Amino acid sequence: MPSYNAPLRDMEFVLKEVLNVDQLTEYEKYSEADGDTLSAILEEGGKFSREVLTPLNVIGDHEGCKRHEDGSVTTPTGFKDAYEQMVANGYMGMSQPTEYGGMGMPGIWHLAAGEMQSAANMAFAMYPGLTNGAIKAITIGGSDAQKTTYLPKMIAGQWTGTMNLTEPHCGTDLGLLKTKAVPNADGSYKITGQKIFISAGEHDMAENIIHLVLARVEGAPAGVKGISLFIVPKFKLDANENPGDANGVTCGSIEEKMGIHGNSTCVMNYDDAEGYMIGEENKGLKVMFVMMNRARLDVGMQGLAQSEVAYQNAVTYARDRLQGRALTGPQNENGPADPIIVHPDVRRMLMDTKSFNEGARMLVYWAGLLEDLEGVHKDEKYVEKCDDFLGLLTPVIKGYLTDRAMQTTIDCQQIYGGHGFIEEWGMSQFVRDTRIALIYEGANGIQALDLVGRKLARKGGRALMSLNAEIDAYIAEHEGNEKVSDFIAALKDAKTKLTEGTMWLMQNGMTNPNNAGAGSVDYMHMMGISIFTYMWSIMAVTAQKAIDDGSNDDFYSNKLITGRYFIQRTLPMIDTHLARMKTGAEPVMALTAEAF
Amino acid sequence: MPSYNAPLRDMEFVLKEVLNVDQLTEYEKYSEADGDTLSAILEEGGKFSREVLTPLNVIGDHEGCKRHEDGSVTTPTGFKDAYEQMVANGYMGMSQPTEYGGMGMPGIWHLAAGEMQSAANMAFAMYPGLTNGAIKAITIGGSDAQKTTYLPKMIAGQWTGTMNLTEPHCGTDLGLLKTKAVPNADGSYKITGQKIFISAGEHDMAENIIHLVLARVEGAPAGVKGISLFIVPKFKLDANENPGDANGVTCGSIEEKMGIHGNSTCVMNYDDAEGYMIGEENKGLKVMFVMMNRARLDVGMQGLAQSEVAYQNAVTYARDRLQGRALTGPQNENGPADPIIVHPDVRRMLMDTKSFNEGARMLVYWAGLLEDLEGVHKDEKYVEKCDDFLGLLTPVIKGYLTDRAMQTTIDCQQIYGGHGFIEEWGMSQFVRDTRIALIYEGANGIQALDLVGRKLARKGGRALMSLNAEIDAYIAEHEGNEKVSDFIAALKDAKTKLTEGTMWLMQNGMTNPNNAGAGSVDYMHMMGISIFTYMWSIMAVTAQKAIDDGSNDDFYSNKLITGRYFIQRTLPMIDTHLARMKTGAEPVMALTAEAF
Repeated sequence: MPSYNAPLRDMEFVLKEVLNVDQLTEYEKYSEADGDTLSAILEEGGKFSREVLTPLNVIGDHEGCKRHEDGSVTTPTGFKDAYEQMVANGYMGMSQPTEYGGMGMPGIWHLAAGEMQSAANMAFAMYPGLTNGAIKAITIGGSDAQKTTYLPKMIAGQWTGTMNLTEPHCGTDLGLLKTKAVPNADGSYKITGQKIFISAGEHDMAENIIHLVLARVEGAPAGVKGISLFIVPKFKLDANENPGDANGVTCGSIEEKMGIHGNSTCVMNYDDAEGYMIGEENKGLKVMFVMMNRARLDVGMQGLAQSEVAYQNAVTYARDRLQGRALTGPQNENGPADPIIVHPDVRRMLMDTKSFNEGARMLVYWAGLLEDLEGVHKDEKYVEKCDDFLGLLTPVIKGYLTDRAMQTTIDCQQIYGGHGFIEEWGMSQFVRDTRIALIYEGANGIQALDLVGRKLARKGGRALMSLNAEIDAYIAEHEGNEKVSDFIAALKDAKTKLTEGTMWLMQNGMTNPNNAGAGSVDYMHMMGISIFTYMWSIMAVTAQKAIDDGSNDDFYSNKLITGRYFIQRTLPMIDTHLARMKTGAEPVMALTAEAF
Repeated sequence: MPSYNAPLRDMEFVLKEVLNVDQLTEYEKYSEADGDTLSAILEEGGKFSREVLTPLNVIGDHEGCKRHEDGSVTTPTGFKDAYEQMVANGYMGMSQPTEYGGMGMPGIWHLAAGEMQSAANMAFAMYPGLTNGAIKAITIGGSDAQKTTYLPKMIAGQWTGTMNLTEPHCGTDLGLLKTKAVPNADGSYKITGQKIFISAGEHDMAENIIHLVLARVEGAPAGVKGISLFIVPKFKLDANENPGDANGVTCGSIEEKMGIHGNSTCVMNYDDAEGYMIGEENKGLKVMFVMMNRARLDVGMQGLAQSEVAYQNAVTYARDRLQGRALTGPQNENGPADPIIVHPDVRRMLMDTKSFNEGARMLVYWAGLLEDLEGVHKDEKYVEKCDDFLGLLTPVIKGYLTDRAMQTTIDCQQIYGGHGFIEEWGMSQFVRDTRIALIYEGANGIQALDLVGRKLARKGGRALMSLNAEIDAYIAEHEGNEKVSDFIAALKDAKTKLTEGTMWLMQNGMTNPNNAGAGSVDYMHMMGISIFTYMWSIMAVTAQKAIDDGSNDDFYSNKLITGRYFIQRTLPMIDTHLARMKTGAEPVMALTAEAF
């Protein structure tokens, strides 16, 4: 049975020592968000993840969700109880606005707590995760009345939420969607159509489910310009705003999937279901995309979370499993063999994973802090910078982190040998669960296109210029610090190569957009590697400073070792990506479609 | 439902046009192995794979194997029928010796036919695959009486075979194995112990199962020097050599696995089972390893096979699925959207896979031909060369092909978006089935160690020197051929870098063996990439010649395009591997075991 212990030391290092999230207390909104409360919340969340969610992960995988003949769905044994405990712990409202019953704490607190939940039980964590997305959408686009009606119950965890975008014939290309909305006399709409892949679409954990549904009002323009967003509650609300009559929406079936079995991925059938428009007609995608951008950070986080839990278990196994002898001579002379952690190739996989996890954690938390600062900072220029950075970082966090997590979870599984392939040890589940993160909320290829086709060019390339300026300033500030000179040199190197890639894209993407398309994923990885190098430099400087200030805590020296592994053994990938990218569209597009 | 069509055109190109397998007819043993018969066999095998095995693949995945209370095992619906058809088609005996009832055709014929079976239904193909392994072991090490008793029935498919190596506490490190063998008065042994992960360990498809079991004769030396190999039939043979009384071996349980559900992976309990030693006492591993080396080629082939079937289905989906518009303007103006094969990033994944598949096929078939030639060639030097090359190629084929196939099957699944994640479309199965190929028959890290620690150094490095000499000669021969000058230049480049890597290993592996261990997987990939570049150069020269000779068949121009993709977009990976390797053991080993 796999275990999970929230990496509290590392989380606190990033949150407090590197990012200094306590700076948020300077703003009135977060004046009570002090570090001790954060520590207590993380401690509590870690305990809940370890003791409650982790044991349910395997159960969820084995049992899956069951749809009954009446369309109702039962979640795996223990999920409902755990959900109630989670709600009682106040998790749902942690970073939600106080006016609707939330605690009003910074988003980054919720992000850190979310990492633990996703690591312990990704399928479970999606239920509150989807609700958060729906809360976000209603917060952004809903009327005051809608907010008052829905947000308090959702924030209290009494009702959950879903996102209904995909239809059988369209996922990425939402312009093709067909679900229709016919206006009723009272201002509501009749929604009819079929949605697929609806996570948490139907379940037994809450008294109502608030579906957010993209649909096309009769007569709306074709394509993406004719899409509106609707609230469609599973049970219509009665005069007291309590769940009343069943609405015209049912779960038609549950998908049989490769992973996340504990989450009910539903086909949802809408048949004259009563819906209420959010925001303006035909402007539904705008709201949905603000919400989705946030959700993409969460998906990147899922990649990190699965990589972390896979890593922890692989380390345990590598320390326990006795097999073979160290190449340099026995390390466990009295035992029948050495623990496999002595073998360099096992180390390689563990170090690849560890240096990824810690870099990813830093990156996601940084993005979380930027998001919080964007909401409270007084300086318009600074807010603009936060927004620019987040625009750039979001596709990279979603795409690069989940691509890498696929490999690291596979590597951690590999460390188990044959035991990794059988379900009993749980490593297969980490790989299978991770797999969806490369697909949903915009497949990784779409993230790369978003980065290359939109985010880079936006506002004359301001975001990347601004990031580069920050990196240059960082290099200038720390160039004299000899103890971390290898990190600073690596950062320069990464920046130079990323810039070369960017220039190539600008020059060649103009003449033929397929040049940009063919190199987009390589470019996304280049940017991921570069930003990781920046993250590692910042962490290295912080760790080195702690040592210089007299700390004897091995944590800091180990942090430097791990960072050096990254710059020595992961950073070189950037050369291959650059070389691949610069071949352009020609080799990629040369075959006719028939010749495949 | 996924489909599979054996890539006969490409198989024939490699077999006949590039490798000229007809050369084998010059040897008496294969005088009847003419190209027309081969074509007929491939055609027939393709039909059987497409029509019989492919539809059973999904069924096998869903149903799995069922163990009953008495320890008997039922295979998935249709497997037994398919097995009988396969036997009736003469597949089992194709390349087996005529003296025991085989057809005596070249091993490469069987290899090509095996590719189709593995692509169509990997779990099914393992039943005859394991039998072949057992046949091989008995052929190598068995007494004449054992051969006469067992081989004809196994070659006829009447009995199947298994390999019993792994025990709960040991897989890679067989020196730790505990299963014991106590001599009986009649020269047989009583075998007692538990074996795990036994593929095809128990099933309902044949009247007897011949288990080959590694065990330790009482009082034998500790470690690998005290291991013997035994034949343990499921049913002991009666006086007429027909299956009689049950032996003391039973299936204790079937493992629940990530993939290959259609194959019964058993825990096998031996309780005073009657066994008969193969070959000499304490020399069991020698026989087992000769057999395993052959099996490693088959596992590499499984990687190719899964990548091929995943590719074929991804191509179909990419042509059918309408989503978005080409970056360069609509390609399907009358439709609601363009087929996703217009998108460069979809192309990238297809081309990565196609260029891998075709290179892998060439490499595995080349190894197959070397194996056949090794058995019949008159020139001792040539035979030696074949053996050297096979020693070097085997770990690379096993390790590099399956590592790459993991990525390509994931990429092909990615092309399906959300549909790739649900089991209905079958892409998940290709990924899950492929996963085991990186683990069994020696995990890929073990292949890399075998390459770096044994194969490179063997006989003063003769194998690589000999391969390099062959490549140098090839470069010299074709350097003047301007139309393929990019391939020849790429080959030179690859060889230079591989040589640099080899030199580094030699210099630094001596001073600290962990330097070799830490770089072993990177080196294995370098060698894989280099040898692929050689394979692609040979195929390019052949294709270009066909064009120069006046062929208008697009096959040849497409082959050149695909090869150019490889040298432009995969070959650059070699730089990253070299850079990673040259960092040495230090970054990999710097952390203490406790610090992970």
